[in-house]
Amino acid sequence: MLEKYIPADVPVDKRKEFLATLEEVTNGSGRLMLFAGDQKVEHLNNDFYGKDIPLEDNDPEHLFKIASKAKIGVFATQFGLISRYGVDYPNIPYLVKLNSKTNLIPYSAKDPYSEQWLSVEDVIEFKNYSGLNIKGVGYTVYLGSEHEHSMLKEAANIVHKAHKAGMLAVLWMYPKGNFVKDEHDPHLIAGAAGVAVCLGADFAKVKVPYKNGKFDPTLLKEATTAAGRCGVLCEGGKKIDEAEFLRELYEQIHIGKTRGNGTGRNIHQRPLNEAIKMANAIYAITSENKNLEEALEILTS
Amino acid sequence: MLEKYIPADVPVDKRKEFLATLEEVTNGSGRLMLFAGDQKVEHLNNDFYGKDIPLEDNDPEHLFKIASKAKIGVFATQFGLISRYGVDYPNIPYLVKLNSKTNLIPYSAKDPYSEQWLSVEDVIEFKNYSGLNIKGVGYTVYLGSEHEHSMLKEAANIVHKAHKAGMLAVLWMYPKGNFVKDEHDPHLIAGAAGVAVCLGADFAKVKVPYKNGKFDPTLLKEATTAAGRCGVLCEGGKKIDEAEFLRELYEQIHIGKTRGNGTGRNIHQRPLNEAIKMANAIYAITSENKNLEEALEILTS
Amino acid sequence: MLEKYIPADVPVDKRKEFLATLEEVTNGSGRLMLFAGDQKVEHLNNDFYGKDIPLEDNDPEHLFKIASKAKIGVFATQFGLISRYGVDYPNIPYLVKLNSKTNLIPYSAKDPYSEQWLSVEDVIEFKNYSGLNIKGVGYTVYLGSEHEHSMLKEAANIVHKAHKAGMLAVLWMYPKGNFVKDEHDPHLIAGAAGVAVCLGADFAKVKVPYKNGKFDPTLLKEATTAAGRCGVLCEGGKKIDEAEFLRELYEQIHIGKTRGNGTGRNIHQRPLNEAIKMANAIYAITSENKNLEEALEILTS
Amino acid sequence: MLEKYIPADVPVDKRKEFLATLEEVTNGSGRLMLFAGDQKVEHLNNDFYGKDIPLEDNDPEHLFKIASKAKIGVFATQFGLISRYGVDYPNIPYLVKLNSKTNLIPYSAKDPYSEQWLSVEDVIEFKNYSGLNIKGVGYTVYLGSEHEHSMLKEAANIVHKAHKAGMLAVLWMYPKGNFVKDEHDPHLIAGAAGVAVCLGADFAKVKVPYKNGKFDPTLLKEATTAAGRCGVLCEGGKKIDEAEFLRELYEQIHIGKTRGNGTGRNIHQRPLNEAIKMANAIYAITSENKNLEEALEILTS
Amino acid sequence: MLEKYIPADVPVDKRKEFLATLEEVTNGSGRLMLFAGDQKVEHLNNDFYGKDIPLEDNDPEHLFKIASKAKIGVFATQFGLISRYGVDYPNIPYLVKLNSKTNLIPYSAKDPYSEQWLSVEDVIEFKNYSGLNIKGVGYTVYLGSEHEHSMLKEAANIVHKAHKAGMLAVLWMYPKGNFVKDEHDPHLIAGAAGVAVCLGADFAKVKVPYKNGKFDPTLLKEATTAAGRCGVLCEGGKKIDEAEFLRELYEQIHIGKTRGNGTGRNIHQRPLNEAIKMANAIYAITSENKNLEEALEILTS
Repeated sequence: MLEKYIPADVPVDKRKEFLATLEEVTNGSGRLMLFAGDQKVEHLNNDFYGKDIPLEDNDPEHLFKIASKAKIGVFATQFGLISRYGVDYPNIPYLVKLNSKTNLIPYSAKDPYSEQWLSVEDVIEFKNYSGLNIKGVGYTVYLGSEHEHSMLKEAANIVHKAHKAGMLAVLWMYPKGNFVKDEHDPHLIAGAAGVAVCLGADFAKVKVPYKNGKFDPTLLKEATTAAGRCGVLCEGGKKIDEAEFLRELYEQIHIGKTRGNGTGRNIHQRPLNEAIKMANAIYAITSENKNLEEALEILTS
Repeated sequence: MLEKYIPADVPVDKRKEFLATLEEVTNGSGRLMLFAGDQKVEHLNNDFYGKDIPLEDNDPEHLFKIASKAKIGVFATQFGLISRYGVDYPNIPYLVKLNSKTNLIPYSAKDPYSEQWLSVEDVIEFKNYSGLNIKGVGYTVYLGSEHEHSMLKEAANIVHKAHKAGMLAVLWMYPKGNFVKDEHDPHLIAGAAGVAVCLGADFAKVKVPYKNGKFDPTLLKEATTAAGRCGVLCEGGKKIDEAEFLRELYEQIHIGKTRGNGTGRNIHQRPLNEAIKMANAIYAITSENKNLEEALEILTS
Repeated sequence: MLEKYIPADVPVDKRKEFLATLEEVTNGSGRLMLFAGDQKVEHLNNDFYGKDIPLEDNDPEHLFKIASKAKIGVFATQFGLISRYGVDYPNIPYLVKLNSKTNLIPYSAKDPYSEQWLSVEDVIEFKNYSGLNIKGVGYTVYLGSEHEHSMLKEAANIVHKAHKAGMLAVLWMYPKGNFVKDEHDPHLIAGAAGVAVCLGADFAKVKVPYKNGKFDPTLLKEATTAAGRCGVLCEGGKKIDEAEFLRELYEQIHIGKTRGNGTGRNIHQRPLNEAIKMANAIYAITSENKNLEEALEILTS
Repeated sequence: MLEKYIPADVPVDKRKEFLATLEEVTNGSGRLMLFAGDQKVEHLNNDFYGKDIPLEDNDPEHLFKIASKAKIGVFATQFGLISRYGVDYPNIPYLVKLNSKTNLIPYSAKDPYSEQWLSVEDVIEFKNYSGLNIKGVGYTVYLGSEHEHSMLKEAANIVHKAHKAGMLAVLWMYPKGNFVKDEHDPHLIAGAAGVAVCLGADFAKVKVPYKNGKFDPTLLKEATTAAGRCGVLCEGGKKIDEAEFLRELYEQIHIGKTRGNGTGRNIHQRPLNEAIKMANAIYAITSENKNLEEALEILTS
Repeated sequence: MLEKYIPADVPVDKRKEFLATLEEVTNGSGRLMLFAGDQKVEHLNNDFYGKDIPLEDNDPEHLFKIASKAKIGVFATQFGLISRYGVDYPNIPYLVKLNSKTNLIPYSAKDPYSEQWLSVEDVIEFKNYSGLNIKGVGYTVYLGSEHEHSMLKEAANIVHKAHKAGMLAVLWMYPKGNFVKDEHDPHLIAGAAGVAVCLGADFAKVKVPYKNGKFDPTLLKEATTAAGRCGVLCEGGKKIDEAEFLRELYEQIHIGKTRGNGTGRNIHQRPLNEAIKMANAIYAITSENKNLEEALEILTS
């Protein structure tokens, strides 16, 4: 069933590996639960230390403990963080996030450029000699930035090189910059998702669409159709009430037709056991075809 | 008859292949019907979803269905889109559009730069291992942009590398930027077409020239002469009445001496069957030497 | 006699070829008649279509007809134009102009950057597999532009690589930009010519020096001395009266001590036969040691 | 005990060497005394000549005399300085600082960019053919600068290449630029330290955190936790009273949980013998588990 | 005695050649007389033509005649100029100046960037196949320019690559740009000289330090100490009275402890015979341990 998601730039001798990876990380569902752990650069220490955040979240190993003990599709974070903890956590399915920037310069002041840190070749070589369980690569594209051209070029190359190696490629598609007025506009999000499929991505992580400032899963349909064979993942965003989070996730998938989700803070800003349960609940809805009630039960189990 | 269109930078052992390609994509006419499908990046989702656009156009596969069932010269779109659908549509004659940008930054605010995404070598390698029917490459040059120099350099290299591999090269020649006052000026369009032949292009896609805001096919003569052995293709532009579109196309070719056309929205913003007919009608005029009446009959067949 | 013009960076095994080329393109005179045909990019279609320009000049093949039938030293134009017509005009002595820009952005608005399109290696490879009669390469340097550093670097490399391959290198040395007040200042022109010899160029094409807005051949002496073993060529500029043109040319060479000229519009903005005669007259003065009267006779022959 | 500090991108056949280096430069303590000697570029001659600075500090060899006679972890300075004195000081444990900039442009005027001078490959090759005792490489990242993306990319590559060669990588993590309001903010410093671990660094040199303009070692805890397996080193800063310096150092390590320090001026702005004693006292606290009293005794020995 | 000036990045098998070169160009004195001839780019034709400049100076061969007949350490000029005259002047000891810019843009208007023209590899290859007597390479660094980072990187690489080939590297260290208020400040000059040794240079050419607008040789001591094993050369500057020039030179060396000088205009802006005598007098003081009286005698010999 997932064969149609194998792009033509995966060479014949890598198609089996690519398909197996896709099946494994989606539990055969085609839907990806992406545990997002790239915020230590993107948001500096804001997401890991402060009011209502448990102290243990400040230690980067917290992310690895969750990723190794919970059910997840992939754990997305920077190469360096993986290299520093990977020896002790070799079985986590990793997605190497290849670019990141800090939040020190406001988007209103300067159009963002998040440049690729390491090459896909570096990742492949590292995967081979370290034996780590690396499943794919990720990259953020800021559409509408004056540096858009550089990021489009890097993204196109990353996706293609990942596919040539039989690996997955996920793009964070975020319109940003001086001329982007409403990042939550459903039509703009559909446009961004459409760019992702033109870049050849397997999955595109996008903002949640709003109408009059409120989420409605039907708003996602334009984007999930426009993205075609590229699966749309909504970002998790700020930590909110668990039940509300899971209900929205369920609707995103079953009404909006997203093919997964990308969640960070709503998982790791909890004590380890709670974080694991939350991750498992998200995974249940995303990749195990569980309904909302079943997912909520996991939280209280 | 088409031998004179083989440039000297096609090596001897590739001349036969180049000529065969040119004959095949032009049906021996030397005139190219280019089905333009790069708008998902260039215009985000504007051309695929909205008032008067059929819902099926929002699914990127719509483009591939048309391209596989209609008569076309080449289907021009991004590498990633080809890679995601190409396995199921291996026989479409593809032209890989190597650069694209979004429309989020207005031309009045910043001079555009659309950078090359992937190399011609990537395309050749992909063509070989995927077995897809790739006929050539395309690239947009924004003359008059402060980034003109980068695009001229990339364009010159793309054309030359394509020719060395026996492939066609089509350039979108669009003057844009702060100092370009009238993109529809016939003299400016002739200048842009002249740059294309100096870059060695096989075909140049240009804006339609206007006089007092109106199209007149004689306005094209300066450009089609100035382009010499580079064939001029007028862009299709926004969707208009079919009969009017076909009449203008006929006049562009027979009065203005264009050597084809590049049409997107006027084809794909229709239900599949209508889109196929429209493409076939355009192809009939462009590459089958049919007259306007014969073409119009195709629409109602 | 011309041995002193072989630079030390021509390797021993290429010195004979370099000398033969220099003798051939200068008819043994050491003076070069350069037929400049790069204006289709530099001036878009302004020089080829309009008032007082014969219609046939609009077809780029006009340039090749002249270059193949008239006596010339070299025909300087872009790679792509050569590749599109070269098969039918293999015997023209070509000089590949490696950079060009359009005139859409005024020099007063932005300092110019004309970037190298293709590499000298591309030219050498093309020369070998196409069999075309390529004698050298050309490049424009805009001194005083904020991008001067990029052009100086590219120029130095182009000259050196051409010499290593036994080919000639001609530099167009044009001070331009916000801080260049008078391009016709004899002292500035001498400075530009001096930069050319420091870049190792064989010939430098410069503006015509003026004093109080008027040309005087003695004004060239500073430049032709300062350029040392780099030959100075005055540009032809706008089309003027033939006799006046030839008289100025004669004085440039015999009083100003230029070593040739670079002429475009004064040749190609004429019907073919007249253009050929004008080219022959220019060649007679430049490379055949003819006097003004003999040259004028050619025009009326 | 230090095995957990071997990152996964150190290849198997280099792990032993990497561990031995880490043990050697930290005296088995895991804590690094870094003698910082890169100020001749960073501060020009301000730190070496002037009021209250002994004349001998103006001679660059002063740094090498200290580094060779005192107990230190590594001596960090530029490649060129090492190359000019290294023959006479082959046993100093060097850390090659790969980028540096001068202080001529104020941070308030232009966001800083300190570019990598030489490659890690250059350092490895040099280490091999010179026989010098090179232990690692260093690099400064100015987070918040508009050039942050270039420095993040260079840093990620430097760390990874150093690890592949079995060498240590230390990053100077300094938020700077127009949008950085308080470099001594503990939360910002924690963020910077967190970026360092995401870049894979072994150690991160950071500013000293202040609350209401005063140092308090508990302010470091957020950063040292956030940095995880990347050791935090506080910079030494301007020369202050020795006893105060050592007390702060002791508290940084034992209360703030830093894993070393980076000190320059507080060592080299003294006559040789005093400088050696000060270095030894710092080393005693940092890497020999000595208490403050023991360290103060060294000063007066 | 000069062994201590062999940097550690000269490989063992090149140390003998490097030492021999250093001894030869300094006449065993360790002090370098650098005949600076790069002004045809740096100052355009201002230094070669005009009031009080002999006409023969306008011919670039004048420089080669002086360099071949006078006693000099090295003749520093651009690659292209060497290539055009080198065949006839193979014995001059050349130093290839690898970057240069014109003076058309005022430093007050835009921070300068002088980019490297050709690679050190080009120079080495050229030296080998031309047989010219090339001793080293030179490069200008404009500290304080917003492009400082590019020049620091190029300089570090040039010095290292020259050393790997057993050649000398001289850096012109000139603080310039919007934030450089006084280029003749002794402390700033000392800082610039200190940067040169951190870049690994063999010699650094600097501005002459002033106090209250006047030269005093003791002002050089800070710089010559700060530069350590990198020899400081004062620039010659504008042409002044010969005796005054030589007296200042003597004091620079014997009081200020410079290790040579870099002189252009004070030599070449004279008729050939006078220029040769002036060069010989400068050489006598710099590299032959002659006193002022002996040097002055050379002028009148």
